[in-house]
Amino acid sequence: MDITTVGGIVLAFAAILVGQALEGGHVGSILQLTAAMIVFGGTIGAVMVAFPKKDFMCGMRLVKMCFGDKKADLSGLAKQLVEYASVARRDGVLALEGRLGEVKDPFLRRALQFVVDGVDANVTRDTLEGAIDAEYEEHEVGAKVWESAGGFAPTVGILGAVLGLIHVMENLNDPSKLGGGIATAFVATVYGVGSANLFFLPFATKIKRKLKLEKERKTLIAEGVLSIQEGINPRVLEEKLRAYTGEEPGEPAKKAA
Amino acid sequence: MDITTVGGIVLAFAAILVGQALEGGHVGSILQLTAAMIVFGGTIGAVMVAFPKKDFMCGMRLVKMCFGDKKADLSGLAKQLVEYASVARRDGVLALEGRLGEVKDPFLRRALQFVVDGVDANVTRDTLEGAIDAEYEEHEVGAKVWESAGGFAPTVGILGAVLGLIHVMENLNDPSKLGGGIATAFVATVYGVGSANLFFLPFATKIKRKLKLEKERKTLIAEGVLSIQEGINPRVLEEKLRAYTGEEPGEPAKKAA
Amino acid sequence: MDITTVGGIVLAFAAILVGQALEGGHVGSILQLTAAMIVFGGTIGAVMVAFPKKDFMCGMRLVKMCFGDKKADLSGLAKQLVEYASVARRDGVLALEGRLGEVKDPFLRRALQFVVDGVDANVTRDTLEGAIDAEYEEHEVGAKVWESAGGFAPTVGILGAVLGLIHVMENLNDPSKLGGGIATAFVATVYGVGSANLFFLPFATKIKRKLKLEKERKTLIAEGVLSIQEGINPRVLEEKLRAYTGEEPGEPAKKAA
Amino acid sequence: MDITTVGGIVLAFAAILVGQALEGGHVGSILQLTAAMIVFGGTIGAVMVAFPKKDFMCGMRLVKMCFGDKKADLSGLAKQLVEYASVARRDGVLALEGRLGEVKDPFLRRALQFVVDGVDANVTRDTLEGAIDAEYEEHEVGAKVWESAGGFAPTVGILGAVLGLIHVMENLNDPSKLGGGIATAFVATVYGVGSANLFFLPFATKIKRKLKLEKERKTLIAEGVLSIQEGINPRVLEEKLRAYTGEEPGEPAKKAA
Amino acid sequence: MDITTVGGIVLAFAAILVGQALEGGHVGSILQLTAAMIVFGGTIGAVMVAFPKKDFMCGMRLVKMCFGDKKADLSGLAKQLVEYASVARRDGVLALEGRLGEVKDPFLRRALQFVVDGVDANVTRDTLEGAIDAEYEEHEVGAKVWESAGGFAPTVGILGAVLGLIHVMENLNDPSKLGGGIATAFVATVYGVGSANLFFLPFATKIKRKLKLEKERKTLIAEGVLSIQEGINPRVLEEKLRAYTGEEPGEPAKKAA
Repeated sequence: MDITTVGGIVLAFAAILVGQALEGGHVGSILQLTAAMIVFGGTIGAVMVAFPKKDFMCGMRLVKMCFGDKKADLSGLAKQLVEYASVARRDGVLALEGRLGEVKDPFLRRALQFVVDGVDANVTRDTLEGAIDAEYEEHEVGAKVWESAGGFAPTVGILGAVLGLIHVMENLNDPSKLGGGIATAFVATVYGVGSANLFFLPFATKIKRKLKLEKERKTLIAEGVLSIQEGINPRVLEEKLRAYTGEEPGEPAKKAA
Repeated sequence: MDITTVGGIVLAFAAILVGQALEGGHVGSILQLTAAMIVFGGTIGAVMVAFPKKDFMCGMRLVKMCFGDKKADLSGLAKQLVEYASVARRDGVLALEGRLGEVKDPFLRRALQFVVDGVDANVTRDTLEGAIDAEYEEHEVGAKVWESAGGFAPTVGILGAVLGLIHVMENLNDPSKLGGGIATAFVATVYGVGSANLFFLPFATKIKRKLKLEKERKTLIAEGVLSIQEGINPRVLEEKLRAYTGEEPGEPAKKAA
Repeated sequence: MDITTVGGIVLAFAAILVGQALEGGHVGSILQLTAAMIVFGGTIGAVMVAFPKKDFMCGMRLVKMCFGDKKADLSGLAKQLVEYASVARRDGVLALEGRLGEVKDPFLRRALQFVVDGVDANVTRDTLEGAIDAEYEEHEVGAKVWESAGGFAPTVGILGAVLGLIHVMENLNDPSKLGGGIATAFVATVYGVGSANLFFLPFATKIKRKLKLEKERKTLIAEGVLSIQEGINPRVLEEKLRAYTGEEPGEPAKKAA
Repeated sequence: MDITTVGGIVLAFAAILVGQALEGGHVGSILQLTAAMIVFGGTIGAVMVAFPKKDFMCGMRLVKMCFGDKKADLSGLAKQLVEYASVARRDGVLALEGRLGEVKDPFLRRALQFVVDGVDANVTRDTLEGAIDAEYEEHEVGAKVWESAGGFAPTVGILGAVLGLIHVMENLNDPSKLGGGIATAFVATVYGVGSANLFFLPFATKIKRKLKLEKERKTLIAEGVLSIQEGINPRVLEEKLRAYTGEEPGEPAKKAA
Repeated sequence: MDITTVGGIVLAFAAILVGQALEGGHVGSILQLTAAMIVFGGTIGAVMVAFPKKDFMCGMRLVKMCFGDKKADLSGLAKQLVEYASVARRDGVLALEGRLGEVKDPFLRRALQFVVDGVDANVTRDTLEGAIDAEYEEHEVGAKVWESAGGFAPTVGILGAVLGLIHVMENLNDPSKLGGGIATAFVATVYGVGSANLFFLPFATKIKRKLKLEKERKTLIAEGVLSIQEGINPRVLEEKLRAYTGEEPGEPAKKAA
């Protein structure tokens, strides 16, 4: 579970609700079905108009990236690749075939399969890089679905507020209803601004960031496997992959000396 | 029919109108001819000033992209190209001439015609890529027409509201008319913000996205046909086109081994 | 005359003024000299501070691009270039000298002069492309003058409104003057928002677009003349220039086969 | 003196103050020390937090670029370079040493010194281009200091207004003070919006533009001197430098023929 | 200690608080625990949702960059590198091993170690540049944490204000509480706008700028060490590094002549 997503939502809600309670407000006064209907119905509708069905569904599916916590063990991955490089150098790339079964990551297995199958190096590179880019771009559109929801929600919230205020203004001769009417109208603003800033925009930012980290992980795999195919020296590969894992360069260079 | 466009518009309108009705508002109070005249007349006028006639008309025509649902069958297209590659390899590119009649897609037919006519490979590439880019850029301006309408509408709506408020303020001594006057003034804001967020901006986003998908589809065709002209191995072409169709790479590589 | 510029301005003004009249407003209540003085004086001042005199004057001159309607006959231009290519191929580039007199477009004449004078091809290319880029960049600054006017006007309008409201607030004890004072203050907002959205920003967009079309036209000329200098086959040139004119590729390829 | 900077400031101030006077407002009501303290103190503070001391000071120094009017005589400069090219061609680059004393522009002198000293052409190019880029980037940060002041000022102005309104609201039971209190609060908005739109943002725009023109001037010098080092034909150099001076190409090409 | 950061915060706070006191306001009226809870709790929550834990912590750690004042002595560094270049040229790169102990900067030591170890030049370049880029990108995300806090805070502040206003509106029948309630609601706006403009956004700007300066410093080291590895002439290296140190080029070129 992604602790900052869950913790952030809990913190924001607790802070706002407790703060409101301390000021003497009632939670009930900001729970309003019609405002929710206008703001979320309008926002979902606008997002649906803005994106093809496939992109919209992709955006929905990507929400789980905000909550899941797939740790990318880049150091372990680099170590694994260096080991395969040793095997390939000692016993030839075909010797990697026996190791394929133990590989859990589907992208790594697919990449190693190319090497074992003796696919041409250029085709391997084009295919792997093409797959990484295509997946990234496709998913990025999903992140944009949330970004656009974060753009529409506050304006639809204002729309809801103005609609409410119109209703209030038409009944201005009964001042006793004035305050309550305005309060009701403001709830739509709260929903629009709140959902955009506590959910939609942060979701978009987190999804984009995680997509980028996943892209880097796959690029590390692709670089590693392509180097294995070229028959790289495992120690040089270790050095090369260090740029991805963020470990301190230098020391191993010392060892290598 | 593009189900998300139609469904999104229906959802947004239903949510807003039902929500408003539940709050006790009347649809009639947000139906106002003069506000519509100011907001939409002003917005259309501003967009007309901003774009040459040709671009403006292009934007108008592109609306149908939001509602149409031309499914791009990339897998079928790739299969077709691989088949033509087999034909060309077995019987020479001239053998493709007999197949031209069955090709429905005009861009594919035009591209194959180049191959059959034995046009120089560089001219073919320049012409096809030039045509793809030129069409994309020209249509993108059409999407910008909607984007700019989405930018002008809310400010023109505020203009209409301020004009209405000026009228209200001049008659401030008659408080009984105050509320109704303000309500009327606010309707212009509703029209401006609403049309921008439920129509203009989502239209621009969807048109741009569909233009990009169409560009990718044509690039797939161009890549495929250029490879056929070079006499590519159909199996390698199959692998190559997989980056466009988004199908899982790897497995066929296995088969190919 | 650019019909969308004039038509757009007329439409926007008609819609807003008729709409206002239908709501019972008087045109007189939004005609206010002091508000105009504050908003337009302030905006022009800000733009003058923001740009050197030369750029400011360039921006002023470019307004005529919004109203003029210089149609670029790209097809005719391409045909003309193909014809010159035929002449140059048949009789040598010097034979073009006799045709120079009939060339009306100064850029085309200048470019052909280079060919006739036997200027080195690289110098020709550098000079023509340098001239196209330099002119485009210089004029683009002129478009930015309008863009920046469109950015300053609404904020200066708000400045004027707040100044007016300050005056109103100081005389709050006389409620009978309240409404009129606020109305007057709001007129500054109308001027700022209106001038930015109906003139300044649309002007900037249209100027930029027309500059880009003009740049494409000159690039077509440069490409054509450079090809003539290289002694290109007129039919290949025809094909090549099709990317600029936006005509259907393919058919002539057929003819060429 | 840069006439548009001074004229723009005078025009904007005159328009606003005269306009306000005509509406019956007093200049005194917008002269308020505490509002100025809050807005300008807060803005300067925010800008200081945002930039290292060196960049902040650079921004302060660059203000003089808005007011100074260093005309760049590009044609004269080009003529001078062409003359040096003639000297270098006729008598060798060492003959330029005698001319160094008459060169007033420090960058041109420095560049010619490289040629006279026989420094390697690549080192000359790297050093000159490196110096141009480094100076431009360093000064551009100074322009960003003003840009960021233009971003902070309006929000700090709103901060001041809200602080004033809080004070007003706490004394709501005395309506006689209401108007004056609100008026005072609004002055902070006037200061924030006004300073940003009449000074800070226009300053940033003008500084950036002048930095760019200065960069172009130095690039002209570098190109010219590097060509002299290569022993270019003075007439070709004249043609080459025309792209920078914006003079009509073509005619001299004619002469050169 | 970074004097502009501390001085800027002190100046901004002093200006605002003294200004407020002069206007007759009490500091107490803008000290409100519940508003702080809503605004800062909500903002921190939103930022946590938006960034993975690692990036969030990185952002927190980078705050010290705003306050620390690590002066980068680029001239001293360049001098040091030139000295090492002399040593390497005279006595071979291995002679640098004895100097490694005196090198305090870890990145410089690491880079020199590569040279001493005789690591391949391409691997050295890739590793050093990869390390510089990776560190910069990783830290830049930390700066974006503050930037996004600066984006969320004002909107969460408005959220808090609207929540407060809803509470006020519900108790509209008791006018005596109206002013105080609105004042309380406005404090949330003050917190949101104030924290964003006096802390979060300036912090983001300063961190980014310092990261860029640090990147330039490391690039200078990498360039210098790579040149040493190539056996560059110390005087040429001195000239080359001048682009980074911002010292006047030209004079040393004179000396070198």
